[in-house]
Amino acid sequence: MKIRPHELTATEAAAHIAAGRLLSVQLVNSCLDRIAETDGDVKAWAHLDPEAALAQAAACDRHRQAGLATGPLHGLPVGLKDIIDTADMPTQRGTPIFAGRQPDEDARVVEMLREAGAVIMGKTVTTELAFMHPSVTRNPMNAEHSPGGSSSGSAAAVAAGHVPLAVGTQTNGSVIRPASFCGTFGFKPTRGTIPRTGVLQTSKSLDQLGTFARTLEDAALLADAMAGYDQRDSESFAHARPDMAAGTRATPPMEPDLVWLNLPFYDRLSEAARDGFDGVMDVLGPRVTCMDPADQLSELVAVQARIHEYEIVQHQGHVFDAHWDQISETLKPILTRARKIGAAEYEDALAVKASAERFFDEFFTEFDAILAPAAAGEAPRFGEGTGDPIFCTLWTLAGLPSVTLPLLVGETGLPIGVQLIGPAHKDDRLLRTAAWVQQHIAAAAA
Amino acid sequence: MKIRPHELTATEAAAHIAAGRLLSVQLVNSCLDRIAETDGDVKAWAHLDPEAALAQAAACDRHRQAGLATGPLHGLPVGLKDIIDTADMPTQRGTPIFAGRQPDEDARVVEMLREAGAVIMGKTVTTELAFMHPSVTRNPMNAEHSPGGSSSGSAAAVAAGHVPLAVGTQTNGSVIRPASFCGTFGFKPTRGTIPRTGVLQTSKSLDQLGTFARTLEDAALLADAMAGYDQRDSESFAHARPDMAAGTRATPPMEPDLVWLNLPFYDRLSEAARDGFDGVMDVLGPRVTCMDPADQLSELVAVQARIHEYEIVQHQGHVFDAHWDQISETLKPILTRARKIGAAEYEDALAVKASAERFFDEFFTEFDAILAPAAAGEAPRFGEGTGDPIFCTLWTLAGLPSVTLPLLVGETGLPIGVQLIGPAHKDDRLLRTAAWVQQHIAAAAA
Repeated sequence: MKIRPHELTATEAAAHIAAGRLLSVQLVNSCLDRIAETDGDVKAWAHLDPEAALAQAAACDRHRQAGLATGPLHGLPVGLKDIIDTADMPTQRGTPIFAGRQPDEDARVVEMLREAGAVIMGKTVTTELAFMHPSVTRNPMNAEHSPGGSSSGSAAAVAAGHVPLAVGTQTNGSVIRPASFCGTFGFKPTRGTIPRTGVLQTSKSLDQLGTFARTLEDAALLADAMAGYDQRDSESFAHARPDMAAGTRATPPMEPDLVWLNLPFYDRLSEAARDGFDGVMDVLGPRVTCMDPADQLSELVAVQARIHEYEIVQHQGHVFDAHWDQISETLKPILTRARKIGAAEYEDALAVKASAERFFDEFFTEFDAILAPAAAGEAPRFGEGTGDPIFCTLWTLAGLPSVTLPLLVGETGLPIGVQLIGPAHKDDRLLRTAAWVQQHIAAAAA
Repeated sequence: MKIRPHELTATEAAAHIAAGRLLSVQLVNSCLDRIAETDGDVKAWAHLDPEAALAQAAACDRHRQAGLATGPLHGLPVGLKDIIDTADMPTQRGTPIFAGRQPDEDARVVEMLREAGAVIMGKTVTTELAFMHPSVTRNPMNAEHSPGGSSSGSAAAVAAGHVPLAVGTQTNGSVIRPASFCGTFGFKPTRGTIPRTGVLQTSKSLDQLGTFARTLEDAALLADAMAGYDQRDSESFAHARPDMAAGTRATPPMEPDLVWLNLPFYDRLSEAARDGFDGVMDVLGPRVTCMDPADQLSELVAVQARIHEYEIVQHQGHVFDAHWDQISETLKPILTRARKIGAAEYEDALAVKASAERFFDEFFTEFDAILAPAAAGEAPRFGEGTGDPIFCTLWTLAGLPSVTLPLLVGETGLPIGVQLIGPAHKDDRLLRTAAWVQQHIAAAAA
């Protein structure tokens, strides 16, 4: 049975396109067909213009045929979470407040994606303002379940085979969690690696971009294409980024040392998740050290909430004031609570965050990566929220690179992700470790 | 005799720094010593803060020692023409009008250089507003001569061994000409390859950035680090740039076909330049075709002037109005003439420019590169202007990549450059041809 182009990984499709065995137009047409077949149920797309996508693909094909230089994503369709500004597509942020909003400029990452040769396929559904209120998107693995959030459409589009690559954002658990629920790889590089200019700001201290793909290498390939310094982004850093895709292809010089932290909130794990992780521990054996962390670590959950809620009011308060009646009943109580957070409380939270970052700088001198759940278990049923982000909270707060691997299966057959977290600015080493873990689990399963 | 670090090429120094055999601090100290020894005569620097440069170098060394990713220019000092904005150094544009001007933001290329790991050494002297009025800078080969302009300080700083790399701009002949006069390599990529945001705008249609270095590979290495798409630059293009440094290391699949166009203004060539090019022709023999071009080609010189003069008034007219008394007697008559250019005349000039670009797209299906003089001959004596840019005018107007190789010597022993011009967007192939030409001339001379 012949493989349809939309089933190819991004790395495979890029190689076929570079070699002239596949046209971008053929790939994009196959993806559009797949969307037409399935998006009536999945509802991953907030904006999709097939003609515009095909026009970009045709331009990519002409460009290559002219013998001109091509980028790492040449001709590959990419989905963008609908809080990332595009000059040629609306960016509506998952709320009626911004219905029909058309930016004048591309976000910095869109500029980088265009240079890399990507076809901007369309805008994927986000939860309301990238927060907790569920979107219309369904889980492609089982439409009775949620895809998670807030990057609901990006995770679902990749899982459904609509695009090989999609971009999301994470302020708490909005990349790793939906990737776990939809059975894709999800990768959030070190905070500041990918610039945020032109992306809806919900928390200047915590917002981070991440990627979705159907292989680890693809998730890194997309992150590499968007990695760069941007002086307009307060968290961006003015030095080189590691070669993340190369990290996924590298072999560790010695078997990595992993650590499992017994965090109190792990009592929220489903039985299947617990069993799954027991199995992972058995396979990895002495490579994993189990530890009871200091209590302060779980107190960081409250710190993340305080910073996130205080800053969203700082950044978007004027929007909430002007459109209160258009805000969901999920968000309203959070905003009401958020407005009561004082500046001193916020400053204290930032100080704790800084000390947590120093703690982890030390911590990783002993370990290559933290092994952790990506979520409590399978995706919640549709209508029962987007799932608990707490399993990502600490790592997002500390700005650490994290990745989820779709290695476990839950009670009803839905996927559960295995999360790995590494030291800041060593994303390539985290991905090298992740590839090693993936190979060992796969070998044991075989 | 031991080589001093400032004598290393950028490529050599980068390799030593990457291998831990050389610290950026050692390299920068050596460059600062060289500047202290010679800049009293050369006067290449408009702003230099040794402590700030050493602080950047020390940060590069700490960064590398921490095992973090490093960029292609890690620890290498780079000089910036003083029309390129820097958030941490004044940018005074070679005129008392902007004395003490301190930008709030880095130019886009400065952002890219910092990400690549460069040490921003300081700001190099430019002629008044990057136009024709000579600067104080002297030619390091012979202080009685001009270094050319408008990128006077960048060319002189590289030639004098102050820095291995420097950035300039060219609207007519402001990179290729001073490189020829100072005996360095000069490279101006295809128009739109390097973004101009944060660089003084003198002509939105013609302004282009370029590089100075002491080897061809180094000139390309610096261009690669600054190549990228910027939606805020009207000439920037949203697709990948060729790997220019790789081009300088490549071998042509077959011997290249060059063409020499007998342009009427070549009667301005000095006798030594003419003799030098006769020698080059002898060495390259049948690889060079001589042609008498259509008359329209030399008429493009007037077209460049019309666009340049009309646009500088459009962009900077308000500055000239407010500070007329601070404008040089060189520039005043040009501006007075420029104000008389009508919009229709300007539009006609743009149309001719567009047709010239189409002409060259066709032209290069037959030839790999145009062989041409970089200047009329040796650098003019100091006080006698910055030299005639006409030998660069056509190629700049058409936005073609061009490079000058310091291969010839004039009457008094000063260098004369050999210019090569290639098809747009195939900069890597031009550089591959240039490396081939350089090797063949060198072999013949040996």
